Amino acid sequence: MGRRGMSAGEFLHPFDAAIALAPQGNGSYLGQMSGSYANFIGPFGGTTAATLLNAAYSHPERIGEPLSLTVNFAAPIADAEFTVTAKPVRTNRTTQHWTIELVQADAVAATATVVFALRRPTWSALELRPPEAPAAAKVDLLPVAGLPAWAQNYEFRIIGGGFNPGSGERSHSMTRLWIRDRPQRPLDFLSLAAISDAFFPRLFVRRQRYSPIGTVSMTVNFHADSALLARQGSVELLGRARAQRFRDGYFDQVAELWGIGGELLATTHQMVYFKE
Amino acid sequence: MGRRGMSAGEFLHPFDAAIALAPQGNGSYLGQMSGSYANFIGPFGGTTAATLLNAAYSHPERIGEPLSLTVNFAAPIADAEFTVTAKPVRTNRTTQHWTIELVQADAVAATATVVFALRRPTWSALELRPPEAPAAAKVDLLPVAGLPAWAQNYEFRIIGGGFNPGSGERSHSMTRLWIRDRPQRPLDFLSLAAISDAFFPRLFVRRQRYSPIGTVSMTVNFHADSALLARQGSVELLGRARAQRFRDGYFDQVAELWGIGGELLATTHQMVYFKE
Repeated sequence: MGRRGMSAGEFLHPFDAAIALAPQGNGSYLGQMSGSYANFIGPFGGTTAATLLNAAYSHPERIGEPLSLTVNFAAPIADAEFTVTAKPVRTNRTTQHWTIELVQADAVAATATVVFALRRPTWSALELRPPEAPAAAKVDLLPVAGLPAWAQNYEFRIIGGGFNPGSGERSHSMTRLWIRDRPQRPLDFLSLAAISDAFFPRLFVRRQRYSPIGTVSMTVNFHADSALLARQGSVELLGRARAQRFRDGYFDQVAELWGIGGELLATTHQMVYFKE
Repeated sequence: MGRRGMSAGEFLHPFDAAIALAPQGNGSYLGQMSGSYANFIGPFGGTTAATLLNAAYSHPERIGEPLSLTVNFAAPIADAEFTVTAKPVRTNRTTQHWTIELVQADAVAATATVVFALRRPTWSALELRPPEAPAAAKVDLLPVAGLPAWAQNYEFRIIGGGFNPGSGERSHSMTRLWIRDRPQRPLDFLSLAAISDAFFPRLFVRRQRYSPIGTVSMTVNFHADSALLARQGSVELLGRARAQRFRDGYFDQVAELWGIGGELLATTHQMVYFKE
């Protein structure tokens, strides 16, 4: 018999365990921080974002697929139970708007808004160009020993713009990499939201040193539908991230995630607090 | 005696009239759609965004200055009264998180989240480069006759990537322009939020034709503090906007707003519905 009483052959991926929610009715869910995605302080923001999205995504009243998700990280989440409440505030013919709150110890620790949409074929065009990249198999796997727990759950293959603490400040913070879940897991909107936060903080890459930081707000814009994600399966995503401005305690971080066939799957941007 | 009973010399800028809110207590405000910022359907999204921000910004419990604003446009706003409710859900030592809702005829028409932050001097760096641009005075003012009402309230000086309906599809949607309020108005966070939505829809620029569109979600990340905005005053901002992906009824639009001295004041991104 497998762990958690599952029958042989069943396997709960650590990501699914980390973002699991127990419905309490009325759009309210119980969750629990997962140690397997722990970061320096509190959990990896990507799993928090995916957990908030999951509350609306798994709600019986949901229509359509994720179009835009914004998560505001209001406080560190403690290693304890929390409640997520998701409310569909407006349902239109082709879009649906949600507000979501994560409460722990009677205080709001995160908020989110998400828009779901029904997509249909139209004139389409891609203006952004994917980054140049060698095949994933030709890029070394990043050793993750010594990195926080959450990083153990991803395969990173850094093409350029890595983080080698103490190697000296660089002129820019651009990183290109291949990334996917470890162990492999077929891509869905939840893991895509989490991977959007899996780029190392641009401050680390620019200055090549650790520094206290914390994401304050993150938006993920989804450019793919579930058919495109299904086609991607568990193949590595190509990512590119950079900062545009560091100023007076805050910097931004913008990133793209590309799929097979040069498809742009998601773009993301966040504002991050830093101490010095 | 001036209009609205003001004494001579007082002048209420149309933008301030458009985003005005009457406090009802408890974070609740009454507003009214302004015809002077009307768009094809409902008001200009920029004034809606600024109105939502204004509810939190003018709230007595607010600390700090705007860092990140996300506005979700859930339904067209009718030419009638509405109620905006702003709630500070978490106040930390240096950040404050708000959720905001705009209700009209008992239905949610827009939601927003905003994070305010206290900034303090740190190591700073600018990675993004401002666009090449001739001096504003050397660029022709765009004739706005025939454009929707809201556009009458801005001076646009298009450097490249203009909108000339019927001139034929282009290979990209990039626009560079100088922009400011008309009549002139000293820049603040509210007008900066509105100007973030003042770039013409990228679909119009790419295809050089009108098409039914509607912004679904917009985020503005502020890189400036109030001292930098005060220094800017009513000098033109340099803007650059482009789309990254048009696909199956939605496209994104990313933009930057630059101030004097090559200062990056705000970056913004939105997801926009389009019909065909």
